[in-house]
Amino acid sequence: MSFTETTTRLTHRGALAMIDAAVARAEAMGQPQCIVIVDASGEVLAEVRMTGAKFLSRRSARAKALTAASTGAPSGAVPEAVRTAIGLATDGAMTGLPGGLPIRVGGVLLGGIGVGSGTGEQDLEVARAALAAIGAET
Amino acid sequence: MSFTETTTRLTHRGALAMIDAAVARAEAMGQPQCIVIVDASGEVLAEVRMTGAKFLSRRSARAKALTAASTGAPSGAVPEAVRTAIGLATDGAMTGLPGGLPIRVGGVLLGGIGVGSGTGEQDLEVARAALAAIGAET
Amino acid sequence: MSFTETTTRLTHRGALAMIDAAVARAEAMGQPQCIVIVDASGEVLAEVRMTGAKFLSRRSARAKALTAASTGAPSGAVPEAVRTAIGLATDGAMTGLPGGLPIRVGGVLLGGIGVGSGTGEQDLEVARAALAAIGAET
Amino acid sequence: MSFTETTTRLTHRGALAMIDAAVARAEAMGQPQCIVIVDASGEVLAEVRMTGAKFLSRRSARAKALTAASTGAPSGAVPEAVRTAIGLATDGAMTGLPGGLPIRVGGVLLGGIGVGSGTGEQDLEVARAALAAIGAET
Repeated sequence: MSFTETTTRLTHRGALAMIDAAVARAEAMGQPQCIVIVDASGEVLAEVRMTGAKFLSRRSARAKALTAASTGAPSGAVPEAVRTAIGLATDGAMTGLPGGLPIRVGGVLLGGIGVGSGTGEQDLEVARAALAAIGAET
Repeated sequence: MSFTETTTRLTHRGALAMIDAAVARAEAMGQPQCIVIVDASGEVLAEVRMTGAKFLSRRSARAKALTAASTGAPSGAVPEAVRTAIGLATDGAMTGLPGGLPIRVGGVLLGGIGVGSGTGEQDLEVARAALAAIGAET
Repeated sequence: MSFTETTTRLTHRGALAMIDAAVARAEAMGQPQCIVIVDASGEVLAEVRMTGAKFLSRRSARAKALTAASTGAPSGAVPEAVRTAIGLATDGAMTGLPGGLPIRVGGVLLGGIGVGSGTGEQDLEVARAALAAIGAET
Repeated sequence: MSFTETTTRLTHRGALAMIDAAVARAEAMGQPQCIVIVDASGEVLAEVRMTGAKFLSRRSARAKALTAASTGAPSGAVPEAVRTAIGLATDGAMTGLPGGLPIRVGGVLLGGIGVGSGTGEQDLEVARAALAAIGAET
């Protein structure tokens, strides 16, 4: 392994295209959402809290995004048996709540998106719409 | 005073229109920025960290937005003599750094926008472009 | 008991030898890891986040190291029945997640090592390799 | 601007080579140091606290590394006039203390290194030795 290696990152154009697509889908389903996008190190790239969304869902959406970006898997895939333990050991950053998906383009993990305020299935539908908008794997 | 009263709030459509205008202006000036918009209670409505912006400016941009939303005045208007004291007393949320402006429409204070990563003047130019996009007072 | 007594502490040379051995083992098993070493007071001595490791595992690896250093036992030995209560009462610092081991040389507790990003068994294998590198008890 | 773009990142091999070179230089000068390396989003990659170093310097070294990684400039370049304000507005993450340098290879900003426990000049000498070890710009 070399000292450095080439990788790919998500631009703000990509993040904002995801936000726009997520908002459009949430509006279409009539369920306001909080949507958070983080990069591959967990630093926030973009977020929005839609009118009428639960304001605390901004926090859980961030945890969902962090979980997906860190593990490279949906937040809902965190095993039930360790959810409380891992949540406690990570200051609440790691969660098993559904609604977080990794952002992966060309096989490279670029970060994560977390959506919260609806049902788990609504959250995931909005997250998937965002991924599709930039041609990310869904 | 009655027990309740009518007010106005900024929607996510308004916040996203501000983000888009701010990003366009920042791209035009060639200075990537962190842009944060908070509501009249200081809760984040939308934010973006542009590619190449200083990631710590996300924190200072949030402080600028909070300051402007709380005071109804530009963050740079906090008097020099009390800046450190007020910063300490508010866990860093109140700042005298320029780049935060109140969002006021029809005389009603709706929140604040904070911009950071450029010079103070660049930050303010981007914040003003965002306000203009929704017809807010500048 | 006297007012003072002689003890033993882990040097940075010891901590870095542990890090190197842990990284070598993790590379050999093809599972990138976060590895954290703390002293007998819980203060970090050394840490590394390997390329491809889960970034949130840096937090849980630290909790594992703290738990092992504090209790002088593997983190996984925290009784199931009290894990959530103890995690809550210690701001998440004490965890029952496996992957944390005490660092003990000549019967003296010098600190703890925490490893995270793999399975519990992988985490422990890496931690044991680190202990072996400095002749610590395993 | 596309949704994604190619970039370069520092591997753990690069970060550990920096740590080793920094420790060797600090040992040679007889001044134990705290050394922290963060990636381009500020997430810690590696750190060490040398025997005899000031344990609180671990915190300031992290702030120096974050400052350099965020601004792409030495931490000591933060203008005197705004140091307190920016420190407050970033939860102490941004500092004007010398000893933080950006990690830049082939013109790409990969993160930052922060060194603390010696004089400002000693801290910088150790940071420069670390950069040289991976062929980064100094």
